Amino acid sequence: MNKLDFHSSGRHFLQIPGPSPVPDRILRAMSYPTIDHRGPEFGALGLKVLGGIGKIFKTRHPVVIYPASGTGAWEAALSNTMSPGDTVLMFETGQFATLWQKMAGNLGLKPEFLSLPGDEGWRHPVQAGMIEARLREDSSHVIKAVCVVHNETSTGVTSDVAAVRRAIDAAGHPALLMVDTISGLACADYRHDEWGVDVTVSGSQKGLMLPPGISFNAVSPKALEASKNGGLPRSFWRWSEIIAMNQNGYWPYTPNTNLLYGLSEALDMILEEELDHVFARHQRLAEACRRAVRGWGLEIQCADPAAFSPVLTGVRMPDGVDADAVRKLIYERFNMSLGAGLGKVKGRMFRIGHLGDCNELTLLAALAGCEMGLKLAGVPLVSSGVVPAMDYLAATPGTAALKAAA
Amino acid sequence: MNKLDFHSSGRHFLQIPGPSPVPDRILRAMSYPTIDHRGPEFGALGLKVLGGIGKIFKTRHPVVIYPASGTGAWEAALSNTMSPGDTVLMFETGQFATLWQKMAGNLGLKPEFLSLPGDEGWRHPVQAGMIEARLREDSSHVIKAVCVVHNETSTGVTSDVAAVRRAIDAAGHPALLMVDTISGLACADYRHDEWGVDVTVSGSQKGLMLPPGISFNAVSPKALEASKNGGLPRSFWRWSEIIAMNQNGYWPYTPNTNLLYGLSEALDMILEEELDHVFARHQRLAEACRRAVRGWGLEIQCADPAAFSPVLTGVRMPDGVDADAVRKLIYERFNMSLGAGLGKVKGRMFRIGHLGDCNELTLLAALAGCEMGLKLAGVPLVSSGVVPAMDYLAATPGTAALKAAA
Amino acid sequence: MNKLDFHSSGRHFLQIPGPSPVPDRILRAMSYPTIDHRGPEFGALGLKVLGGIGKIFKTRHPVVIYPASGTGAWEAALSNTMSPGDTVLMFETGQFATLWQKMAGNLGLKPEFLSLPGDEGWRHPVQAGMIEARLREDSSHVIKAVCVVHNETSTGVTSDVAAVRRAIDAAGHPALLMVDTISGLACADYRHDEWGVDVTVSGSQKGLMLPPGISFNAVSPKALEASKNGGLPRSFWRWSEIIAMNQNGYWPYTPNTNLLYGLSEALDMILEEELDHVFARHQRLAEACRRAVRGWGLEIQCADPAAFSPVLTGVRMPDGVDADAVRKLIYERFNMSLGAGLGKVKGRMFRIGHLGDCNELTLLAALAGCEMGLKLAGVPLVSSGVVPAMDYLAATPGTAALKAAA
Amino acid sequence: MNKLDFHSSGRHFLQIPGPSPVPDRILRAMSYPTIDHRGPEFGALGLKVLGGIGKIFKTRHPVVIYPASGTGAWEAALSNTMSPGDTVLMFETGQFATLWQKMAGNLGLKPEFLSLPGDEGWRHPVQAGMIEARLREDSSHVIKAVCVVHNETSTGVTSDVAAVRRAIDAAGHPALLMVDTISGLACADYRHDEWGVDVTVSGSQKGLMLPPGISFNAVSPKALEASKNGGLPRSFWRWSEIIAMNQNGYWPYTPNTNLLYGLSEALDMILEEELDHVFARHQRLAEACRRAVRGWGLEIQCADPAAFSPVLTGVRMPDGVDADAVRKLIYERFNMSLGAGLGKVKGRMFRIGHLGDCNELTLLAALAGCEMGLKLAGVPLVSSGVVPAMDYLAATPGTAALKAAA
Repeated sequence: MNKLDFHSSGRHFLQIPGPSPVPDRILRAMSYPTIDHRGPEFGALGLKVLGGIGKIFKTRHPVVIYPASGTGAWEAALSNTMSPGDTVLMFETGQFATLWQKMAGNLGLKPEFLSLPGDEGWRHPVQAGMIEARLREDSSHVIKAVCVVHNETSTGVTSDVAAVRRAIDAAGHPALLMVDTISGLACADYRHDEWGVDVTVSGSQKGLMLPPGISFNAVSPKALEASKNGGLPRSFWRWSEIIAMNQNGYWPYTPNTNLLYGLSEALDMILEEELDHVFARHQRLAEACRRAVRGWGLEIQCADPAAFSPVLTGVRMPDGVDADAVRKLIYERFNMSLGAGLGKVKGRMFRIGHLGDCNELTLLAALAGCEMGLKLAGVPLVSSGVVPAMDYLAATPGTAALKAAA
Repeated sequence: MNKLDFHSSGRHFLQIPGPSPVPDRILRAMSYPTIDHRGPEFGALGLKVLGGIGKIFKTRHPVVIYPASGTGAWEAALSNTMSPGDTVLMFETGQFATLWQKMAGNLGLKPEFLSLPGDEGWRHPVQAGMIEARLREDSSHVIKAVCVVHNETSTGVTSDVAAVRRAIDAAGHPALLMVDTISGLACADYRHDEWGVDVTVSGSQKGLMLPPGISFNAVSPKALEASKNGGLPRSFWRWSEIIAMNQNGYWPYTPNTNLLYGLSEALDMILEEELDHVFARHQRLAEACRRAVRGWGLEIQCADPAAFSPVLTGVRMPDGVDADAVRKLIYERFNMSLGAGLGKVKGRMFRIGHLGDCNELTLLAALAGCEMGLKLAGVPLVSSGVVPAMDYLAATPGTAALKAAA
Repeated sequence: MNKLDFHSSGRHFLQIPGPSPVPDRILRAMSYPTIDHRGPEFGALGLKVLGGIGKIFKTRHPVVIYPASGTGAWEAALSNTMSPGDTVLMFETGQFATLWQKMAGNLGLKPEFLSLPGDEGWRHPVQAGMIEARLREDSSHVIKAVCVVHNETSTGVTSDVAAVRRAIDAAGHPALLMVDTISGLACADYRHDEWGVDVTVSGSQKGLMLPPGISFNAVSPKALEASKNGGLPRSFWRWSEIIAMNQNGYWPYTPNTNLLYGLSEALDMILEEELDHVFARHQRLAEACRRAVRGWGLEIQCADPAAFSPVLTGVRMPDGVDADAVRKLIYERFNMSLGAGLGKVKGRMFRIGHLGDCNELTLLAALAGCEMGLKLAGVPLVSSGVVPAMDYLAATPGTAALKAAA
Repeated sequence: MNKLDFHSSGRHFLQIPGPSPVPDRILRAMSYPTIDHRGPEFGALGLKVLGGIGKIFKTRHPVVIYPASGTGAWEAALSNTMSPGDTVLMFETGQFATLWQKMAGNLGLKPEFLSLPGDEGWRHPVQAGMIEARLREDSSHVIKAVCVVHNETSTGVTSDVAAVRRAIDAAGHPALLMVDTISGLACADYRHDEWGVDVTVSGSQKGLMLPPGISFNAVSPKALEASKNGGLPRSFWRWSEIIAMNQNGYWPYTPNTNLLYGLSEALDMILEEELDHVFARHQRLAEACRRAVRGWGLEIQCADPAAFSPVLTGVRMPDGVDADAVRKLIYERFNMSLGAGLGKVKGRMFRIGHLGDCNELTLLAALAGCEMGLKLAGVPLVSSGVVPAMDYLAATPGTAALKAAA
């Protein structure tokens, strides 16, 4: 059905920052026949995935699984907790923070959007200090929630969520903390309970290595309480009924059964590898990627080394180079998909995904494709980037080796 | 992963009225690797499925495909067209009509629920005359929409949608007509444009033979116009942006890629068989099923022969028999799932699904499983039901034969 | 790719006596990527399947697995043990016994073919007494092997292998005992060691529920010894090198990797269900099938009740009815494949397979298809056969229930 | 089921010279349910694959497809044409030529094995001149066949089959020409008819991109004639009956159905890409691989540039380096399988496969894995090999681009 126009053989390299490549093991799990979502087998499946997903969010509280893609889970977070006209404080880290802010407006909320000047916000993480300052001003507690993106997929910048919690607490402000870690979950360390997050939003098609189609709200007791007395008009997204039926492993309406098969398998894979090793693997591949970018003499979109994303790396193009033309050339000549620059940085950067079911050789193939493509596109490169990436990967033991040695 | 506790061999018979059994051909199509939802291959896929799905709804107008299950599409229909506090006229045909009405309330609308007395509504189709009468009373046009269920999955009763349109027109009322054909689409004839429906809601896991996870709104120009000037707070469900991006085969947010592979395959299968033959096949299997029920001497839930559903048949139990105990016995002894009685008829009936990828021998197996289970449960049967079902199926040429002869 | 011409929906019923329907679970296992057949993963796979397959043959001695279909394993058995011109004593039970005898001639051996008069041999099992008598005559031990078919797939007759061993021993004859249980293995009880079989031949596509493509020789120490000093010119079939390399889980030449994945899964399935329950399940379904045939008033091909096959049932047509025309009608009208009459009984009978991944409702579907097809073909039936089959299956607890009660 | 011990994420790189990686498209095709091998669907499948496979061998004459792996097809070629004690002239190009010669001995033939002195034969192609000289000496035509390996998988040396035919003709010798192109078919150009080959032997798990399990004999009229009057004792391998039944798309015994589904898909893929483009793609990737080896300053096993294999490249280790230790390190650290040195070159070289469903980035990943592994193993490298490979691949348009430009 689907064909590549330019390549007639071999595997396509899907190196966008999500959807990430779905492992065969998960595709096979998803091809199990659909079952009765009211029968005993389904209940066992439901209890398994509901139990497992909490370990990934590091929460003892409910995680609501929606048969809807990630954008839906954004809406769910807002519509369960905010009342019409409520003010939400958001922070501009890139395109996805911008879209969430736009959604808040669509839903009739009043988003306030903190930003660094110019495009700087798209190269730096959330500034907890700015949030704290703003909350201190809000003595009448007009602001009902602080919403930040943990791993900004459009830029490759990862923010310090715990610092945001500390900022809220330092300001003595009762606002809820809502975090989007759609692309961060199961790639970068994430601690819903420990960091005091009230609602965490995530999706299936990134670190969980599934196709898109299910999404999540991890919900603190405080958020749950807020949802009981408030919220926007909503029914599909309503937490209460879902959480009640989840006690026995069922959902009030038809769940996305085959994706739940995939989730069950993904949980097995991730917990077998162990979360800490999953995170270390992402960090190591990301560092190799950045060494390649530096080898080429190109600039990394994230300007703050403490905020480098383990999930993806944004590569800025020299002035005058159209990043989308480079991506197109690489797609056509080397059978690889890269992420485009979005919004404010459209055409000025591309994004290399190194998340999910990735390993050393896959990353090096991706870097080789970039290197050849950049050269063919006439981008002047200082030196090979693949070579320093190889040097780094050869010099550092992989997570599997680390684990074996532990 | 999933195991049947009681049967260690052979195929499970999934005879619930949806999710219906997913053909291997579709499961295989869904196992194609996830691709970049912003790349050229995806655009081609998007245009294909958006073009094909219109043929199934019989509409020349937009069909919005959501990466969410069917309940979401109910919410989408209401939230795009109704304003807070609007009155919607609904008709109680069974559990799903009841749930949609409950959702309208959750969303802050004022649902008015027309019903036949007692449980009679659960055995009869929508009464267009009652709708016409109510609309005639509403001279100030407080009612903004009439909402009905085309094929009531909880009872096996199919309503005449064209008659509802005629009733609205006869009353000269401007209300929108919204129809749920989640379980009817691609099983029973459905004509969105010809019948003057404004929003048709459907889902993937019934006649389309897919797993659950995508759902639909077919949208008339009048409904689209209504959405521009009204609607509830909404973002994920918002039609306008989706329809705009669909022009090139894309979606504003991450679509459910692998289910769209499945949809592409399902459209091929259905259009190859031809819709009329798909409908005739469902009618024939449904008639065979009813002959079995009559053979047993049991009562069919649908009391109006003109409204017998081609999708499922509700079988009423004699007084004192717990239908759920019968279903459990059949599940444990004969590896078959049947639909439970829901809501008002819980425990008083079970439902046999004969929709989607079904054929003669599969239906006869299901009927045999029912017949053995009923006997084992002590339900007195007048005679074999399998025998008259076989007689009917042998005597009538199947749709394939009809098609060959055409 | 493959399409049924006459049916556009639903599952095809493959009710031939092999290849039997391959469970989804096995098809999924077979879709694991092909690995290096010299790497460590493969060694682990090899050791697992070599260990497991012995349990199925009930032998502590080597089982050679060939990357070739069952006919190859017949040739392997003969070519490893017989020398050019050797006499082998075979017994005519049907088409497969005849083909094996024909192969012996092709290989330059001298097959002696014992038969009952007329077509009677095709309705009765191996007559151990005839074998004993012949061996007693052979005082100079010209006969080097006795070869019999355990479950004759062309007729549905199962022979008593232990009785053949007793006959050989009673005659005090040193001939090897070679048995074809291609269609019997993992359906009917089989005891390679206890019954004193020297070479047992089997294949993948019957009770093991795999696609065709691998086959087996279970080899006694006596047969192995014979192979060292004799045998026909051979290389691919040569046991010694295979058995040597199997010690570490490898093969001297490229094995059929993906079918070995399937075998690994099949062994898990069979041993989880437990062999005795697998056998009981086959016996029960076979009895239900025979009750249907008797209900129709038709004759079972096997004339000896002690030799009824648990694998398949041969159904004889009344004089003047072309069994192949009946099969064709059933294939076209009801989407089911039945086995043809072969050789001497071509056109005079058809065969219903009830082996491998079969269960009650699948069998009843098959019987319903036969019943409708027979009627449409004008075969006069005494009564419904499905009804007594249902009565029997409802009255007897299935193997799973038996197991639960144990 | 199968797990890698050392890597917990990402795709395994299978870079052995066969089995080559099976494309998902073929794995999906192989998961179609097994069908009746005597039914009408199967006949259509059989005719399709029998028609298509001739195009790959470039022959108008029969190609026999065996449900057995490649070694079986070697035996089939010899056993159908040679009589006991016949002399066959073979040429030592490496391990597989040696194994075929050993098989000839096992089968009771008299193989004469021409070789270059020392290990030189393992670095050079077949020397047609030596064959011609030997045949000229054989004035009494004792030699019945000349047997050569087209692409020697153990060394990466491809021989000139047309030159062997010319040598035979120049000597005026009636010997049959038999060629093993198990690893060459569908990778390197091959012309059964034009080159006057009498029997070509091939297998499924190399250029055809299938799992192992089916194999081929392409048969000239002269070879077919020889088989009628001669041959060794044989039955399974016997051409005549197979060719006769193939007329209608069937086989005399159970074929390897699911692998034939895969073959059907593979033929579609190869013929869509077009054979010439398949060959050019292999040549280009092979050249890139050799540039990497030269970049490292290592020696290529094939010493004759005219005979470089497009299928695989043998990389010789400096004295004192154990090639198997290097392979093991690469397997453990970088999740890649490479081919071992076999027979005379065990431990002295490893083999990189670049055949079948391979593309630029996959090859570069493999080269990067080699480069890192060689360094970690302490092998002194002159420079990066990946860099010149990238330079070459960037500088040359791929086959797809060539095709588009044509």
